[in-house]
Amino acid sequence: MAPTVFELGESDALARAIKFFKPGEHTIVGSGDDAAVVGSAGKYVVTTDTMVEGRDFRTDFSTGFDLGWKAVASNFAAVAAMGAKPSALVVALVITKSTQQFWLEEFARGLQSAIDNLAPGAEVVGGDLALGSEIVIAVTAHGELFGEPVLRSGAKPGDRLAVAGTLGRAACGLDLLLSPDPTLAKAYEEWVEIQLRPNPPIQAGASLSGVATAMLDVSDGLSTDATRLAKASGVSIRLIGSALSGYEAVLELAAQSMQSRGFEASERDWVLHGGEDHALLATFGSDTQIPKGFKVIGEVLEPAEHHLYLDDQPLTPKGWDSVRS
Amino acid sequence: MAPTVFELGESDALARAIKFFKPGEHTIVGSGDDAAVVGSAGKYVVTTDTMVEGRDFRTDFSTGFDLGWKAVASNFAAVAAMGAKPSALVVALVITKSTQQFWLEEFARGLQSAIDNLAPGAEVVGGDLALGSEIVIAVTAHGELFGEPVLRSGAKPGDRLAVAGTLGRAACGLDLLLSPDPTLAKAYEEWVEIQLRPNPPIQAGASLSGVATAMLDVSDGLSTDATRLAKASGVSIRLIGSALSGYEAVLELAAQSMQSRGFEASERDWVLHGGEDHALLATFGSDTQIPKGFKVIGEVLEPAEHHLYLDDQPLTPKGWDSVRS
Repeated sequence: MAPTVFELGESDALARAIKFFKPGEHTIVGSGDDAAVVGSAGKYVVTTDTMVEGRDFRTDFSTGFDLGWKAVASNFAAVAAMGAKPSALVVALVITKSTQQFWLEEFARGLQSAIDNLAPGAEVVGGDLALGSEIVIAVTAHGELFGEPVLRSGAKPGDRLAVAGTLGRAACGLDLLLSPDPTLAKAYEEWVEIQLRPNPPIQAGASLSGVATAMLDVSDGLSTDATRLAKASGVSIRLIGSALSGYEAVLELAAQSMQSRGFEASERDWVLHGGEDHALLATFGSDTQIPKGFKVIGEVLEPAEHHLYLDDQPLTPKGWDSVRS
Repeated sequence: MAPTVFELGESDALARAIKFFKPGEHTIVGSGDDAAVVGSAGKYVVTTDTMVEGRDFRTDFSTGFDLGWKAVASNFAAVAAMGAKPSALVVALVITKSTQQFWLEEFARGLQSAIDNLAPGAEVVGGDLALGSEIVIAVTAHGELFGEPVLRSGAKPGDRLAVAGTLGRAACGLDLLLSPDPTLAKAYEEWVEIQLRPNPPIQAGASLSGVATAMLDVSDGLSTDATRLAKASGVSIRLIGSALSGYEAVLELAAQSMQSRGFEASERDWVLHGGEDHALLATFGSDTQIPKGFKVIGEVLEPAEHHLYLDDQPLTPKGWDSVRS
């Protein structure tokens, strides 16, 4: 029988897991002391995000590797959404008495693999391991900021709204996983993979200090996050329906397959309201060239009755409330 | 009936709680965007610590205020143990469906009160709220480092070992709380308070960059943490029993009261092996004047058969393993 983390004890379990981590280029002192030491030329950004077993993930859908990857991807997307370059992260992990050492090592491998693929040069500089009755993953990520931060509040009427990364795929993947017919998730594995291991455009965002007027990462869905940006900036936003059709088209077959088996599915709902792709949603002044990787999907308007419109109709956000949803 | 956080929902609950937070002096952009922005002149330290309900705390012993305070105190002690000045922290909080809004606001008030008392100028710059089946508090704290970090690994034979802060009181307080006789905790409230709201010497540690040769905070007990320092430095450490008698003397009455009611208690065990006071344990070169607030309790020796001695006897650490204990 494979050993559990509990059987090995904290020191041994961690020693075996942290060997998957590689040194980063911003780290002065890595893990092992009271605190890590990270270099910063002037300002750094910091963000934290928590995933709870049973609510934010299921261990029958996600492996340890998937969860390590996703924890890095979602936190680094928030770093990049400030126009910052990911540099370092710490991981607070609550495991259960039955969590296997293999799971912990896969989790560590997933953390490092996401760093290697999404933000090479960053490092896991610390963490804490505790025991509880369900797995909790709380990552705090840091980024180096070389200019001014890109806030949510900087959008101006006349700006164009653009997105980098994918929309709706993670939500489609989740519906496929949740469907009672297991052949569906197999048939559209590509969207399931985006749900399990999202691939946000970190590099595209990290270079937008002084370029984008506003930015955030689409963690809770386009309608919810575009509304947040509009509210913070005191403007209205109009999404252009025709510009979203390409995002919908790639998910059409999956939606049809689900519908034909009697399950509810809508590619439009996935694109408009689905979260967890961690695309970057940004606004650009009319004189600014839209950066590579971004596609214009809307425009910023003077404040109006509603914060968000789809073409000429108000669009109500279908939000994700992390406590009540 | 007082509302729960779950009934209010994330946005409303947080809006009511964060009004207790005050702006800090290192913060460029506070909470509310994808990430906070913190200023740094060159290097910052980062540390994380997790507390799980039922293992690290009990809600019948600790109020929300106590837990907010303790989360700040323990994390800032680790920051100070690097010789850094606490600047900013983020809080990942898992609550349950029955957690009351009042608890959340008390928790926020405890966070801010500990900042005001232990490290004024620092700020809660972000957080995340999630729902689970037990309360989990994961704080990540940051500090500004103006010189070289004080590591665990810098102690040299001939250095003196000194401590700032209290030893054994938090462990005494815990035993009083755990005792079946509730009059005991009432009679020795002062030690119970150190367990619930520790008061580490943050300012004393934050100024030791370039002064102490090694330092850590005593989170898991003097025997365990002195052994860690000795191992990291490749030396042996000798504790001077007579220098510890003052720490024991103040706890003697509490131990006697417990013994007279038939409970096991030892002031020496509390001082040698009790954690959670978050005293700072540091080593100083023979030419260095011992800084104000520190008391010499031992000396650093050449590596020997054991890492730790009490006078001339080897002392085995009674460690706290956060997974197995």
